[in-house]
Amino acid sequence: MGGDHGASVVLPGADLALVRHPDTEFLLFGDQAVVEPLLDKLPRLKARSTFTHTDVSIRMDDKPSQALRYGRGKSSMWLAIDAVKKGEADVAVSAGNTGALMAMSRFNLKMIEGIDRPAIAGLWPTLKGESVVLDVGASIGADEFHLVHLATMGSAMARVLFDIERPTVGLLNIGVEEVKGLEQVREAGRILREGKFPHLDYRGFVEGDDIGKGTVDVVVTEGFAGNIALKTAEGTARQFAQYLRAAMNRTWMARLGYLLARQAFQTLREKMDPRKANGGVFLGLNGVVIKSHGGADAEGFAAAIDMGYDMIRYELLAKIGQSMARDLQARATDVNEPTAEQSGPSGEQVSGAAK
Amino acid sequence: MGGDHGASVVLPGADLALVRHPDTEFLLFGDQAVVEPLLDKLPRLKARSTFTHTDVSIRMDDKPSQALRYGRGKSSMWLAIDAVKKGEADVAVSAGNTGALMAMSRFNLKMIEGIDRPAIAGLWPTLKGESVVLDVGASIGADEFHLVHLATMGSAMARVLFDIERPTVGLLNIGVEEVKGLEQVREAGRILREGKFPHLDYRGFVEGDDIGKGTVDVVVTEGFAGNIALKTAEGTARQFAQYLRAAMNRTWMARLGYLLARQAFQTLREKMDPRKANGGVFLGLNGVVIKSHGGADAEGFAAAIDMGYDMIRYELLAKIGQSMARDLQARATDVNEPTAEQSGPSGEQVSGAAK
Repeated sequence: MGGDHGASVVLPGADLALVRHPDTEFLLFGDQAVVEPLLDKLPRLKARSTFTHTDVSIRMDDKPSQALRYGRGKSSMWLAIDAVKKGEADVAVSAGNTGALMAMSRFNLKMIEGIDRPAIAGLWPTLKGESVVLDVGASIGADEFHLVHLATMGSAMARVLFDIERPTVGLLNIGVEEVKGLEQVREAGRILREGKFPHLDYRGFVEGDDIGKGTVDVVVTEGFAGNIALKTAEGTARQFAQYLRAAMNRTWMARLGYLLARQAFQTLREKMDPRKANGGVFLGLNGVVIKSHGGADAEGFAAAIDMGYDMIRYELLAKIGQSMARDLQARATDVNEPTAEQSGPSGEQVSGAAK
Repeated sequence: MGGDHGASVVLPGADLALVRHPDTEFLLFGDQAVVEPLLDKLPRLKARSTFTHTDVSIRMDDKPSQALRYGRGKSSMWLAIDAVKKGEADVAVSAGNTGALMAMSRFNLKMIEGIDRPAIAGLWPTLKGESVVLDVGASIGADEFHLVHLATMGSAMARVLFDIERPTVGLLNIGVEEVKGLEQVREAGRILREGKFPHLDYRGFVEGDDIGKGTVDVVVTEGFAGNIALKTAEGTARQFAQYLRAAMNRTWMARLGYLLARQAFQTLREKMDPRKANGGVFLGLNGVVIKSHGGADAEGFAAAIDMGYDMIRYELLAKIGQSMARDLQARATDVNEPTAEQSGPSGEQVSGAAK
């Protein structure tokens, strides 16, 4: 029911994803009066879906605390997350209120042992392919231990999505200060450099322009700067596209040139299509929850579902759990981390939830 | 002597700027063996320049503290800043080591009364024209009072550059959290909303994608996120340009289309030309210092000089001083700010330095 367009985008999106992955089954939660007429027009999806009616849906601008109060136990968002909790679903995908989705996911699924705060990871198109960037807005600020957890979870996600044994990892920093960057970023760098993490290849600090270059597979930052970087890149891409459109419309020569090169422009458009990278993955939870952009269309929502499909297929949670366990072990000798963080092993519990 | 190319870019850049503003005079500081042969080939510039030889120049990767130690009193960078301090020059422009330039500027020129930390302001091309974005990397973190100072200084710069009486101002924030954004950002928002600042029009929070849209004339943020936003946008623009180039080269039809539309592509290139927005303005100091991008070419360096020219012509420092004095007055009744911040009036002192 969430997002700018609700079921009218979610259902056609699911239908598109089903074509690509015919072995998917959908549990749909929402308002019967809205969902059923739409579902009747999508017989392929209907045949692979189980629908559960609920009157309650979370509004886009409610605070997470409000949403939890009226939506807990009965809203469509809660029911989708709860299906993951109960093992009925492998992944929950929503285009709804991000804060509410995060709060409910955290409340219901709980955090992976050893990780105390969730993160949102995004897939970023780069000149070399794609990179995982996290945290893009789940929480503000991060101490060195949280940054190291982000590196661990992000590299597990990169292993799953890019099929790389040891993804390269960089810490987002700025290079114009006497003391290069925040104390906690430097400290996280020290831990990653010295800690001998077996399944990530730490490459040091990266700057904002390294993200688009694809300098590393995983870019780690706290959520405030990460969210601003993400939105700024989206804004710049839109700006460029608008300049290009205007330029190509200015003279008849340009329009003719555009016609001749329209295949090339199509390629460019696909390259820059933000829908393809739609889907923020909530990391650190005992379950996979994907947040689709609220303004996504059916193609975009399908991309978010696809991402969830890959996460499950390649056992993201099990890999995070393994990584966490190994990292904690590897670091136990090197680092004086608060003991609460070391109380794993979390691997087993996690892979249980991911089946 | 600074930047990736040193005098071989700085001197032709100055020569270009001189064509646009023939009333400019240049004080040049550097190594005679390098500068004189270049200057001999630029008779127009030579006629309007006074050259001072020094053996010492600041290396690009030295720490500010090192640079201060060996460069104070004798390096080309120091001498340029010192000329501003002595009133011999109106503005210092350098493509050199940013941290060193900032440290020397601060050490020699001192801060404007009431402002305790410097900022770097950049000019950002937007869909509506240009916006001032600050701080893009002078210092990390900012409390609410520093954010308000940034708003005041940034709007003074926007008044000077865009000739707007009351520039619109937004605080950069993220919109996906329960508590929307950092405490100090919210608190700065409250001060700006309630404080009745006569020469800025506070418009609330903006997100990363609002920068490129041109939602406000002045975007205020602390330096870590600001620097990451700036570099990320640069990276995205470069990425887009590279995709476009590749797409236009893929087929002969595309290449033909490109030829027909090359005027349009030229327009686009100019629109996106990062050289045009080259020049970070150091704000908060008793003097105007402009940092050109280290990798800038002559055209880019000329743009940095042009920016300095406008700052002086339209009396940036006097306007910042007036704004600070008025704001402090306006806020004295509303806000419990530490008294050190209210010990102005700074207007008079500042306009003295700007003459």
